[in-house]
Amino acid sequence: MLRADFAIRHAGRLLTMEARRDDPYGTILDGALAAFLGRVVWVGPDARFEANVALAGDAVDAGGCLVTPGLVDAHTHPVFAGSRADEFAERLSGVAYADQQGGERGIQRTVLATRAASEDDLVCLAVERAHRFLAHGTTTIEAKTGYGLDLEQERKLLRVLRRLAALTPLRVIPTFLGAHVVPRGVDRATYVRTIVEEMLPAFRHQARFCDVWCDAPAFTAAESRAILRRARELGYGLRMHAAQLGPGEGPSIGAELAAASVDHLEYATPAQVQALAAAGTTAVLCPGAALTVPGSPRPPLDALREYGVPVAIASDLNPGTCNSESLTFAMSAACVLWGMTPAETLIGATRGGARSLGLEGEAGRLGPGHAADCAIFDLEAPEEIPYHVGVNRVKTTVVGGRVVTPP
Amino acid sequence: MLRADFAIRHAGRLLTMEARRDDPYGTILDGALAAFLGRVVWVGPDARFEANVALAGDAVDAGGCLVTPGLVDAHTHPVFAGSRADEFAERLSGVAYADQQGGERGIQRTVLATRAASEDDLVCLAVERAHRFLAHGTTTIEAKTGYGLDLEQERKLLRVLRRLAALTPLRVIPTFLGAHVVPRGVDRATYVRTIVEEMLPAFRHQARFCDVWCDAPAFTAAESRAILRRARELGYGLRMHAAQLGPGEGPSIGAELAAASVDHLEYATPAQVQALAAAGTTAVLCPGAALTVPGSPRPPLDALREYGVPVAIASDLNPGTCNSESLTFAMSAACVLWGMTPAETLIGATRGGARSLGLEGEAGRLGPGHAADCAIFDLEAPEEIPYHVGVNRVKTTVVGGRVVTPP
Repeated sequence: MLRADFAIRHAGRLLTMEARRDDPYGTILDGALAAFLGRVVWVGPDARFEANVALAGDAVDAGGCLVTPGLVDAHTHPVFAGSRADEFAERLSGVAYADQQGGERGIQRTVLATRAASEDDLVCLAVERAHRFLAHGTTTIEAKTGYGLDLEQERKLLRVLRRLAALTPLRVIPTFLGAHVVPRGVDRATYVRTIVEEMLPAFRHQARFCDVWCDAPAFTAAESRAILRRARELGYGLRMHAAQLGPGEGPSIGAELAAASVDHLEYATPAQVQALAAAGTTAVLCPGAALTVPGSPRPPLDALREYGVPVAIASDLNPGTCNSESLTFAMSAACVLWGMTPAETLIGATRGGARSLGLEGEAGRLGPGHAADCAIFDLEAPEEIPYHVGVNRVKTTVVGGRVVTPP
Repeated sequence: MLRADFAIRHAGRLLTMEARRDDPYGTILDGALAAFLGRVVWVGPDARFEANVALAGDAVDAGGCLVTPGLVDAHTHPVFAGSRADEFAERLSGVAYADQQGGERGIQRTVLATRAASEDDLVCLAVERAHRFLAHGTTTIEAKTGYGLDLEQERKLLRVLRRLAALTPLRVIPTFLGAHVVPRGVDRATYVRTIVEEMLPAFRHQARFCDVWCDAPAFTAAESRAILRRARELGYGLRMHAAQLGPGEGPSIGAELAAASVDHLEYATPAQVQALAAAGTTAVLCPGAALTVPGSPRPPLDALREYGVPVAIASDLNPGTCNSESLTFAMSAACVLWGMTPAETLIGATRGGARSLGLEGEAGRLGPGHAADCAIFDLEAPEEIPYHVGVNRVKTTVVGGRVVTPP
């Protein structure tokens, strides 16, 4: 008998996300799950629960609902102040996103608002966002800095992320994104040097990943390479924003440096996709952002499928291109914009995201040993998640064997 | 002093939606609202509340949030059983929506599932949907039948709508949509005759509107005209699904018969739009459905603006093309798909919807005399509603001067 302090009973379908020959979801019909000290110890048909599990405490009755692993959002910018609703509207009337990045607009505008905000105010804003992530079934987020853009301000954002992780049940994986854009009023070469010589060494124990935006409005191939190489030497995992707004070397650099993830990829070429496959890099797609940047092409999905690149789907929560904490909405957008299948999107929002974060044995699946993080959907089948577009059908979220949203 | 039994205080912005020269929203900064017996009796700056209103009872403190009229959703299909998630997925891989209407698929499939469901089961499903509408800030829906398609089954659906209106605070305006498609196994001419001779007379006191889908998979121009003319004689208001899947006479018929609304309109011509303007018909746009029907063209928005046709934005909740109760999501979709402005979408989701339902003095605005139906958003400015895409930012919904969602 397995000792357990938490259980879910009567899941109409429990998706372990351990793919089987004919079932990408690893479905258990009328399933149950048991956990002890925050980790899954048993999953199986509910009928076998009593014979296998000695549960101290009450079980959550899923009442026939769909149970999935807690969703893993591999690309978010959750620490910022201010709104850019006006730029959202302006883009729809024909202004290009790249053209919104000049002067005190675009990312620079969020940088000014975020610098002006106190650390406490930023914590409050981030905590509200964390509650929305949890309410939408997301239990782990990758969380970027990138609106500070100097040593002290980026340090402040990393402190906000640490406090966020302490204040909410959401699992927060911090990424240093000093190389988001070159801050206004600073010389490019000087800023790259500051990142390489000061920020990267300073934050090596605060951030698990380093990210660079390699695209025309941000950093060149040479700058990106210099920053990422130094980051790798210092022990950071590597991520990139690349080929979002135009073709470029970004994805090739990601492959060359065996980045954990290369994100966006709208303009990546099939040859670059092949290189990413060889490097073992995860492609993190951000369909919500593509939706609000008119004219965004479809990422090279056929090549991603052909070469077997692992794909994650992310919300890309940020004030510019996608003000949304809903990963299920991103799943719907990936289906309707790009023709991804519902299965591809759920894989991307669970084990794909976990893989890109180096959390493969930890999150994104519900096998024994994994964290007992689950989303309980008021739905029957996984295909219904993206089908119910723009409405949140998560009724309960569980993190580490504890219910964290009202059951 | 005005006597009141309900109030909202400290709305950061209260939008009456009474357009003024430079403000389509009729914004009151730091606003307040008072209601008595379900109707608004006063709106104004909070600072003048005490001098004008004698309130018996507690006020809802909006805490600086945005307050709008309760949203009015002018096109919904809330009574159905079964899922068509597989067809959603199939369309994304290239199957046309029109081609899904043959045999026991598409609408016919929902008809079979809905006929097989008991009235009580349909009430339960519809009540769950009503709670989702309310949670997303919608306080009034137009609600169609159309999955029964014979006298007794359509009667059942109208009973479900009546019970729905009694069981939830949602305001439900029933529309008879016997002319959704020709049911399988019934001769076209016989079915049209049944609608005209039996159903329309039978339901004249149960449904406020009659709707016809005039498009290739459904009814021809001649059939639509015959049904709508008879409906008009019997006192129904008229609505149409028209020019959704291809060009056709539908919008012209709507104008000719001075329909209250013509809906979808993706393929309407500028000349048809001009005719709708002359007829005083409201154009009800359904961007959520366009999103899941790949290849849907942009409706003739330039012509709609040029000729000044009143526009409503609707969710089009239905199991085929848009399984979503969120009108704010439809607003986001109208912005990102079609370049509508945030102001156009909020006007469409309030007074545009109300106008199409003949509820202009009743719903969609917050002037004295209107129903005290409000949505309180955890946001500052109206432009932020579509900007926060795919997440529900409504924190409280009020119907008839009563809070109907957890405050």
